[in-house]
Amino acid sequence: MPVETIDRPQSELRAEAAQVSAAVDAFFDRLLTFPGDQRDRLYEAMRHAALGGGKRLRPLLTTAASRLFAIDPERALRAGCAIEAIHVYSLIHDDLPCMDDADLRRGKATVHKAFGEAEAVLAGDSLHALAFEILADPATHEDPRVRADLVLELARAAGPAGMAGGQMMDLVAEGQALDLPAITRLQQLKTGALIEYSVEAACIMGKLPTDSRTPYRGYARNIGLAFQIADDLIDYKGDDAAAGKPTGRDADAGKATFVSLLGEERARQQATVLVEQAVEHLSGHGSEADLLRAIARFAIERDH
Amino acid sequence: MPVETIDRPQSELRAEAAQVSAAVDAFFDRLLTFPGDQRDRLYEAMRHAALGGGKRLRPLLTTAASRLFAIDPERALRAGCAIEAIHVYSLIHDDLPCMDDADLRRGKATVHKAFGEAEAVLAGDSLHALAFEILADPATHEDPRVRADLVLELARAAGPAGMAGGQMMDLVAEGQALDLPAITRLQQLKTGALIEYSVEAACIMGKLPTDSRTPYRGYARNIGLAFQIADDLIDYKGDDAAAGKPTGRDADAGKATFVSLLGEERARQQATVLVEQAVEHLSGHGSEADLLRAIARFAIERDH
Repeated sequence: MPVETIDRPQSELRAEAAQVSAAVDAFFDRLLTFPGDQRDRLYEAMRHAALGGGKRLRPLLTTAASRLFAIDPERALRAGCAIEAIHVYSLIHDDLPCMDDADLRRGKATVHKAFGEAEAVLAGDSLHALAFEILADPATHEDPRVRADLVLELARAAGPAGMAGGQMMDLVAEGQALDLPAITRLQQLKTGALIEYSVEAACIMGKLPTDSRTPYRGYARNIGLAFQIADDLIDYKGDDAAAGKPTGRDADAGKATFVSLLGEERARQQATVLVEQAVEHLSGHGSEADLLRAIARFAIERDH
Repeated sequence: MPVETIDRPQSELRAEAAQVSAAVDAFFDRLLTFPGDQRDRLYEAMRHAALGGGKRLRPLLTTAASRLFAIDPERALRAGCAIEAIHVYSLIHDDLPCMDDADLRRGKATVHKAFGEAEAVLAGDSLHALAFEILADPATHEDPRVRADLVLELARAAGPAGMAGGQMMDLVAEGQALDLPAITRLQQLKTGALIEYSVEAACIMGKLPTDSRTPYRGYARNIGLAFQIADDLIDYKGDDAAAGKPTGRDADAGKATFVSLLGEERARQQATVLVEQAVEHLSGHGSEADLLRAIARFAIERDH
């Protein structure tokens, strides 16, 4: 079945994405209340990074997936915000001079440019801790087993077996000629693990047994790769405005990407196949999965 | 009652500390098994920082406090190792060029000196995530409510309301003339919160109601400050070997410390009072609290 015929109209996705974005902003606005002491600068740095930016793909995935299991939207949003806090911390640290040395992120100055390097390290560390505080709070779920499982799997997705490990692979890969399996593995850790967790968090909150989570993880794994290919395409085509940051950096750094390995056309085809496979994983669901299907399609549409 | 008469002999403390140190090393050795891929360098950096160094004060406190509530020593050790992982990550990030710019830590090269700055950022981030993975793992406690509470309170102790917030206060304080209340507050966040949590973790595992934890938190708060004063005295006296790092840095940086504010003699008296108060908090306990009493006394003895 072609992707188009089963998609929820993209305008509805945009409305839902806008609503989630606003809710994420409101959540961080409440969470990051200035303490009124010497830490205000730290909170300002966290707010700079956490408020008003990005696609909020991860919280959107969690809230969309939570519809499959009839999870309270407020709770799903809290889990999504914890994931976003991890994502934002990783961007802050990734942008540091010793890492990607980026001046611009989400269309504004990076945290170390606006506040200083030490502040950026601490703002990242603070958001990292806050993510686990959010999940372990009874407000996120009344069942402590669910809270503990949410924490356990997020820690795995964010740590050396996931995101942080993938960033190390990325460091080591600089100037090396990675092949397709190697770059796929790198991306599955660096960005894929957290995207997969965004959907798995809904499964955990829905108390799905581990072996029943497979299709949802499969969906997430496929769209994680599709989004990465789309990012590579945006970087390759050099559309700074669409990216919200300077593009062409991968080529400048001599980094292998899906586009450099496959070429533009095959990379685009690959992303389309991944999205179709992602949608296939949802075949057991009806209209309650339409939003997840629309998100999948968005992966390959946003670079047009 | 003078501290001396109720103390467990310091030789027994040394033996217990050596045993906990060896157990912490063995734990990190198992946890940080090389994955055998491009992340090996990340694991090497984590092992460099986490293995074979430091007093292991925090795991020692957790295991010592766990004796009060008859907690399984293996589980107490796991919680202690999670706390140590947070402590080690904070040292790695604190040593970065943009923070304290330190070359030496625990008698060996700091992580960024030995492996590079990006590696140091990622090694710290990885240990940060691993701490929560350890706590949320069912091996740490069979009751998921205990696991979730362990995570919640550690996240609070490590985040902007605790350690990371204290580090920000420390940054802001550079070149400022802090008074005694301000420096006390700074230290209670920067180092005190995690030391307090080291004892509270045992209370959580022992399922003590929150309001019954007060004396144990009081004990920990007092010795946290006593240890900080002792650290300031070591730094002031310039004993590089005892400190395992270059000393005299506080004075060079123009930082206010307990010693610069109180003078050497009054600072030492203050530490003694704090230790006596710490021991007072344990008055409801018999010999099962002897190890905690010996740790308190150690705070003011190690700089002699």
